[in-house]
Amino acid sequence: MDLKAIIQDLGRRARIASRQLAQLTSEQKNAGLLAMAEELLASQETLLTANAKDVESARTNGLSGAMIDRLTLTPARIEGMAEGIRTVAALPDPVGHTISQWVRPNGIQISKVRVPIGVIGIIFESRPNVTSDAAVLCTKTGNAAILRGGSEALGSNLAIAAALARGAQRAGLPEDAILLVPTTDREAVKLMAGMDQFIDMIVPRGGHALIEAVVAAARMPVIKHYNGICAAYIDKDADLSMAEEIVINAKTQRPGVCNAIETILVHRDIAENFFKTGGQALLDKGVQIRGDERVCALLGDKAVPAKEEDWTTEFLDLIVAVRLVDSLDEAIAHIESHGSHHSDCIVTGNEAAAERFLNEIDSATVYWNASTRFTDGGEFGFGAEIGISTDKLHARGPMALEELTTYKYQIRGTGQTRK
Amino acid sequence: MDLKAIIQDLGRRARIASRQLAQLTSEQKNAGLLAMAEELLASQETLLTANAKDVESARTNGLSGAMIDRLTLTPARIEGMAEGIRTVAALPDPVGHTISQWVRPNGIQISKVRVPIGVIGIIFESRPNVTSDAAVLCTKTGNAAILRGGSEALGSNLAIAAALARGAQRAGLPEDAILLVPTTDREAVKLMAGMDQFIDMIVPRGGHALIEAVVAAARMPVIKHYNGICAAYIDKDADLSMAEEIVINAKTQRPGVCNAIETILVHRDIAENFFKTGGQALLDKGVQIRGDERVCALLGDKAVPAKEEDWTTEFLDLIVAVRLVDSLDEAIAHIESHGSHHSDCIVTGNEAAAERFLNEIDSATVYWNASTRFTDGGEFGFGAEIGISTDKLHARGPMALEELTTYKYQIRGTGQTRK
Repeated sequence: MDLKAIIQDLGRRARIASRQLAQLTSEQKNAGLLAMAEELLASQETLLTANAKDVESARTNGLSGAMIDRLTLTPARIEGMAEGIRTVAALPDPVGHTISQWVRPNGIQISKVRVPIGVIGIIFESRPNVTSDAAVLCTKTGNAAILRGGSEALGSNLAIAAALARGAQRAGLPEDAILLVPTTDREAVKLMAGMDQFIDMIVPRGGHALIEAVVAAARMPVIKHYNGICAAYIDKDADLSMAEEIVINAKTQRPGVCNAIETILVHRDIAENFFKTGGQALLDKGVQIRGDERVCALLGDKAVPAKEEDWTTEFLDLIVAVRLVDSLDEAIAHIESHGSHHSDCIVTGNEAAAERFLNEIDSATVYWNASTRFTDGGEFGFGAEIGISTDKLHARGPMALEELTTYKYQIRGTGQTRK
Repeated sequence: MDLKAIIQDLGRRARIASRQLAQLTSEQKNAGLLAMAEELLASQETLLTANAKDVESARTNGLSGAMIDRLTLTPARIEGMAEGIRTVAALPDPVGHTISQWVRPNGIQISKVRVPIGVIGIIFESRPNVTSDAAVLCTKTGNAAILRGGSEALGSNLAIAAALARGAQRAGLPEDAILLVPTTDREAVKLMAGMDQFIDMIVPRGGHALIEAVVAAARMPVIKHYNGICAAYIDKDADLSMAEEIVINAKTQRPGVCNAIETILVHRDIAENFFKTGGQALLDKGVQIRGDERVCALLGDKAVPAKEEDWTTEFLDLIVAVRLVDSLDEAIAHIESHGSHHSDCIVTGNEAAAERFLNEIDSATVYWNASTRFTDGGEFGFGAEIGISTDKLHARGPMALEELTTYKYQIRGTGQTRK
């Protein structure tokens, strides 16, 4: 078969499987998930062998140490995947829930009911555990999944997908519930993106170039997970020790993630005091401060001058761009024009200022007196997440089980016709 | 300015207006809507003059009588637009509603709040009243609208948009809340579709070619309103007089709309009796029956043989494709593989059969013992509609005010940081 035929065949099989999955009870799906976890553990040797080959090729191809670490499976990581599946099995199933229900004057009863989306395409990069994590969220919500992982992890991903399929089949779930694209050909992504008769939604999890390629080619909705240029605004009425704790947490607890802050805006009235406390604490943690003119004037050689692009850069590192502002309005205007509408926070004791910030900042998640690091499915109490959507439609912010469903209207009548 | 600069300028202005609109109270928005209705009525002469020129050009260009009728404004149609605006003003405002709210063990309070989407692009064909209908739904929900109407209605649309803008301005709403693309250049659609920094969602309302062009070029989500290949399945346990009423209503009450049926599936056990009642009634109403082999055998020269494409054709006319099936399973399989997942109905007295149909048919709206013609924002009780979405994400089925909003998370803490 040529590549197009292979991808179309996956699509067709996933569509059939999705119809069967949509009709399963929560108990049946959970039994399937637990069987998948068991099969993963039972396949540990096969997984480790396949993964060792991937790692060896990655070394030969000169991948970085960090990439190789992300690629590597260990017994603990396989147990982690299995544990992740058991966690998902224990979560409530959103499918079948009646969102709302009403009766019209003519007597027809309208029910808006939560249903699976159908077939979900997930395109991701090197970490093989995503194969399992993403796939089981789809199974839990009655969706078929077509997965396309990074080429360097193909052997590992095929072994994981085969183990999951064995588990599914053993528990009576359709064996095509989870399908992996069995090729490293980049053309496969384009073919998936064009196949809207078989794939209802695509979630690209990876770098900007991957997302852009999917968006450009996709005919179906794409839920994007772009970068986070998140800001903390320290208001003139901020509790400065709280501000210090929040900026240290939001910048340094894990600088390489999308909900870490990249920008700090400081009200001029409290700037000097903030730099003595929070500013100094950042420096003590080894954070480089890239300041505007007024910040540099206050901090002297402790800061370096910020360039224009620093206000729109996701550093993912111990670097932060810091600017003095004269007002809440200026802070809001800066965030709206320079931020990425992901997660932003205000530190203030002034409720009116806080409410303005919460209402006027058009970001997926807006915080008053809390760290932006809480933008996360687990921290939100969702139990699992497929990512953090930077889109506005369908899913915004932490994307979990409910965001893997849609709805339909079921209407029950007694022979009503339209007049 | 060149076309690209014109479109980008509209985008920039709409984005600024959207920020202002998002902060308005329901009262302010409703006052703006009522002022728009007044300005439309006050501008009646200007509107009629502009429209008369459009109609004259349309005649010169040889447009069909039906097209010219759709294009023509009358005092009654202008009053209809104004009345439509007053109706929208009286509807509840979904913006600001707290969808859900919870407190995490660490004390942060998470609120999921309904907010405007931002800037909505609406691309539509000849009827100028859509300019007003679509625009005011956006204003009601705090969104800025960029409208692109049919080229044959440009003069009328400009006059309507100018009247709406005057009303908005007079009531203190941003004058750029409703913007019309002031050119007939087809390139404008492509430029809008590529401008995802300024337009958050596009709704194309028109024929297949228009929708396809937008989907191919769009970088932002597109809510599609494709065709309806809707089916009625007459089960062996159907009440045949109810079946007759439903098929007559769903096929003949208004054959040219998307929620009319194009296919009837009849269980073989009651086929003969159904054709004596419902079948004959369809023939009496002048409906052409295109039957499969078994239908033609029963109906003789009252039916014509169906071709393969008749099962997937939106006739929008007094034509219906009719097929005998041996079982509910066969009916479901036919609808799933030939229908357009819009609106489908089962007529039966058997609850188990009905529930299977309601659950297994993957359509936006599924009916038990009621006409598919109820798939409509007004009939659902939404008070207004922007269309019937055939998409699965964000909006499915009748699309009204709530579907013109999204949500964000507002989080209130007391200094919490992530451990």
